[in-house]
Amino acid sequence: MKPKADIRMRGFLKRTPVKTFLSLIKDYSQVLSAEEILSVEASGRILAQKIISPTNVPNFDRSAMDGYALDAESTFGASSYNPLMFQVVGQVTPGETYNVVIQAGEALRIMTGGPIPKGTNAVLMAENAEIFDDKIQVLEAVPPGKHVGKIGEDIRQDQVLFEKGRCLRPQDIGVLASIGLEKIKVVRKPKVELLITGNELLKPGEKPSGVQIVDSNSVMLSPLIVRDGGVLKDVYHVPDKRELLSKHLSSSRSDLICMTGGTSVGIDDHGPVLVDELGELLVHGIPMRPAAPTGFGLIGEKKVFLLPGNPVSCLSAYDYFVGRALRMMGGRSEEWPYRSKIVKLATKISSEIGRIEYVRLRIENERAFIIAAGGASILSSTTQADGFLLTEEDSEGFAEGEQVQVWLYDE
Amino acid sequence: MKPKADIRMRGFLKRTPVKTFLSLIKDYSQVLSAEEILSVEASGRILAQKIISPTNVPNFDRSAMDGYALDAESTFGASSYNPLMFQVVGQVTPGETYNVVIQAGEALRIMTGGPIPKGTNAVLMAENAEIFDDKIQVLEAVPPGKHVGKIGEDIRQDQVLFEKGRCLRPQDIGVLASIGLEKIKVVRKPKVELLITGNELLKPGEKPSGVQIVDSNSVMLSPLIVRDGGVLKDVYHVPDKRELLSKHLSSSRSDLICMTGGTSVGIDDHGPVLVDELGELLVHGIPMRPAAPTGFGLIGEKKVFLLPGNPVSCLSAYDYFVGRALRMMGGRSEEWPYRSKIVKLATKISSEIGRIEYVRLRIENERAFIIAAGGASILSSTTQADGFLLTEEDSEGFAEGEQVQVWLYDE
Repeated sequence: MKPKADIRMRGFLKRTPVKTFLSLIKDYSQVLSAEEILSVEASGRILAQKIISPTNVPNFDRSAMDGYALDAESTFGASSYNPLMFQVVGQVTPGETYNVVIQAGEALRIMTGGPIPKGTNAVLMAENAEIFDDKIQVLEAVPPGKHVGKIGEDIRQDQVLFEKGRCLRPQDIGVLASIGLEKIKVVRKPKVELLITGNELLKPGEKPSGVQIVDSNSVMLSPLIVRDGGVLKDVYHVPDKRELLSKHLSSSRSDLICMTGGTSVGIDDHGPVLVDELGELLVHGIPMRPAAPTGFGLIGEKKVFLLPGNPVSCLSAYDYFVGRALRMMGGRSEEWPYRSKIVKLATKISSEIGRIEYVRLRIENERAFIIAAGGASILSSTTQADGFLLTEEDSEGFAEGEQVQVWLYDE
Repeated sequence: MKPKADIRMRGFLKRTPVKTFLSLIKDYSQVLSAEEILSVEASGRILAQKIISPTNVPNFDRSAMDGYALDAESTFGASSYNPLMFQVVGQVTPGETYNVVIQAGEALRIMTGGPIPKGTNAVLMAENAEIFDDKIQVLEAVPPGKHVGKIGEDIRQDQVLFEKGRCLRPQDIGVLASIGLEKIKVVRKPKVELLITGNELLKPGEKPSGVQIVDSNSVMLSPLIVRDGGVLKDVYHVPDKRELLSKHLSSSRSDLICMTGGTSVGIDDHGPVLVDELGELLVHGIPMRPAAPTGFGLIGEKKVFLLPGNPVSCLSAYDYFVGRALRMMGGRSEEWPYRSKIVKLATKISSEIGRIEYVRLRIENERAFIIAAGGASILSSTTQADGFLLTEEDSEGFAEGEQVQVWLYDE
């Protein structure tokens, strides 16, 4: 039996090392099942099937230029000293078929993408032909196959185009359209629910007043969830009432719940206890600052992340743990989506051994300065900063002048 | 008067240098007007106003910890040799106000975010207090202000939070929520229309058959337009009929039209002539391969980009020119959204002086290999490639072993 002791107002009994937490997340963040969607809407989605082309693209020989389709051999010997005249017998544009066989000495006007007519095997570029009424003058031999796009030149029937797990690019879904694949199987997006707790919280859009503040966490997490390939199903603002929270946690049909606030060891912090009662609390308390009161557990198949209510803690805990889980569940790389930059530190950064610090930095003239106002509740520190770094768990920080990797908030 | 000569089937009269084209795009891509939207939906949008906070956040002193609010001075002298006892007279949680003044020798249980009660100026962490029934034992002096978040600690009233032009981060809209700003002004998104021409084209979702191919351009451009901050209003598949195209071009209410196909010098290439008749054709033909038959013009306030129908040309022309215009119209950086990487070339790349080549590359063991199937119509080359590079207009390409900057398709 797991312990069900009430940890409120007694502090964290044991902090889970961040590495252990990350490997737990990895263990429980299996790639979700597949769903079928329209190919045209699949850009950025993760393929859940191998794609083999059912067809050649194109499925006919076509002209790669605007010009004149003709039999290459009948141009052999042409030069400016020996211009050869060809009778232009008609024209073919893309989507049309010219059904009469072209004879030697004849040419057919053809547009880029037009099907190569019978009797021809090359295209003379429009720019290289001198026009005389219904004839063209050829001043240079055209080699066979010139400017002809062969059947299957882009894609061959039965060609393996994409392997399972690929993140589809815009051009990939173009290719899917070109082979006529209307629907494909992709990894479904993890469904996320936000459970925003705190009796002091007003809803976004309301004006702060008295001892009430406005919930900024749901606002901030929503676009991050989308960025990490999740789909935000519901946002609930729930008072710190045990029964209400319990109902929400048990009845949610999401894959992942982020509960913000009520996750620490305060009297109204029901999150950890509830997760432990309803399922299994795997992590509560980590050596990371801010974000120490972060928790993680399972309720049935649902993953529950307990995120601190303080917005900087919430942001860093989401980014370091939840985003990673969502990306893995969605079949994506667990790598951070931020770009990074190596910059010289303008000041030293101290950190306790055994603790990871989430340090916000401003970059000026390729030097990084710490944002002084650094508390867990100072969300504006993350708007003034250009980026952040994390200290190593086993280091005492960085010396002034040291080169550090800064993760940039602006992608 | 500008020339209205019909250029079809005669080749490009004059190619516009790419630099000139880019500076024309810059000239005509002014930042669009503002629109008011909900702050909570503004992540990734560009601010069209300066944001000054109308309030302090928080608007009261609050506890930064779960613990006990008390008067700091009355703890002075406390030590393990001289433990001081404090009477816990009640508790305050966030969102509540405790209205009785706390006296010396008293403490109030307080939760993180709770308002600091009158008579106190510091918070003792829960973990540092020994509890004896309704008393706590203090073993160490608490300095005044300890664990107290002062009024305005996050944001001060009248503080300038964001300047016009800022691309809003997730945490920025969190800050906007926290100051109670329900709506803000952002640069409106450029409205884009796709005019997909070509009698040979089937619509995406259809199966290719006979001499018909499926339009892949609209499929590929849609997510790119979204990426570049545009909003795709309409996609029209239009046959190569002059009157129809003319109607579409004149009646469109978009800010920018991408017409694909019908942009070159073929008999059915009505695009350039129509733009010249209805407005002003500024560019037609550029020294870039593929994408040579790219054009650009204005019809009233509308920008019209003529993009080649061949998908690789379409992709490269969109990416190099249209995406840039959209980003500038939307108030964004004109910089490419792709990440890049410096890689050693495994083979040489030849390029004619005066021409820019769009070269697709596969990266293997930190070396870049050219994708051999390189024609303008081979869309699969951009799916097999890891990225691409552009040769310099005034260079003959790159030598084998040279370090080159490769732009990565996968962001």
